[in-house]
Amino acid sequence: MKIQFWSLGKNHEAYVKEGIAMFTQRLNHYFTTDWKIIPQPKNVATLPAEEQKNKEAASILALLKKDDYLVLLDERGKMLNNESLAQLIQARANESVKTIVFLIGGAFGVNDAVLQRANFTWSLSPLVFPHQLIRLMLAEQIYRSCTILKNEKYHHI
Amino acid sequence: MKIQFWSLGKNHEAYVKEGIAMFTQRLNHYFTTDWKIIPQPKNVATLPAEEQKNKEAASILALLKKDDYLVLLDERGKMLNNESLAQLIQARANESVKTIVFLIGGAFGVNDAVLQRANFTWSLSPLVFPHQLIRLMLAEQIYRSCTILKNEKYHHI
Repeated sequence: MKIQFWSLGKNHEAYVKEGIAMFTQRLNHYFTTDWKIIPQPKNVATLPAEEQKNKEAASILALLKKDDYLVLLDERGKMLNNESLAQLIQARANESVKTIVFLIGGAFGVNDAVLQRANFTWSLSPLVFPHQLIRLMLAEQIYRSCTILKNEKYHHI
Repeated sequence: MKIQFWSLGKNHEAYVKEGIAMFTQRLNHYFTTDWKIIPQPKNVATLPAEEQKNKEAASILALLKKDDYLVLLDERGKMLNNESLAQLIQARANESVKTIVFLIGGAFGVNDAVLQRANFTWSLSPLVFPHQLIRLMLAEQIYRSCTILKNEKYHHI
């Protein structure tokens, strides 16, 4: 199984880059993992929120393969504890899912088409965090899930 | 009012240092804010968890002033959304609290004496994060709270 992290917008900012690289590298010991930064369509930031989300959705949906398992990070989703998150990943591996995609939406979230395409919608926390920081939190949590599944000691840092 | 972030253990790791510095600097436009890294008592890591927590608690309680308002970050606490977190800070300012201390406990959490001393016990998320990353998440969230209270646009990064 492959794990992909998709995020709209800019490359990783300096303040999260090192941590994202560290946890992604560790994750690669368990699953082939990489990041796809989906560039925003041109001039999209000048558009009203709904149009911006529709344009972003078109980019996202065009990139998704039919059998990709899409986990959408969205505040409308369900919160999980570590055990449930680990089980979600294990269940996909058991079902021979080829690729899990964890998608962090754009500045205004995602439109209904992406929400409906999502196989699971996950809320990280009742708090809102900046998208850049969510990238780091996400990479760390999926790495942590792998250590739980393998019953390994988490390498604390 | 002053805001203090207290954390047990080591200095900020490289992967969170820049982000912590950035959000702490921004926070200083609203409240005088600083970090206190409480060094672990000597050889504490070789002790059983309970003894380790008791030694850490002694350090923490010795540093707290009687009228410090202590917010303990602990998974046994209550989760808050952004609005409630902002209100918690505003309420303390209204009550003329001199210092709010946000305390991130040690590797095994805190003992009952610290839990009982806490004026509020706050759970950031149903997920467990490494203490270093929690420092960054905490600084960002308290900065975000200040922008909410001032009705300011959050400076997205």
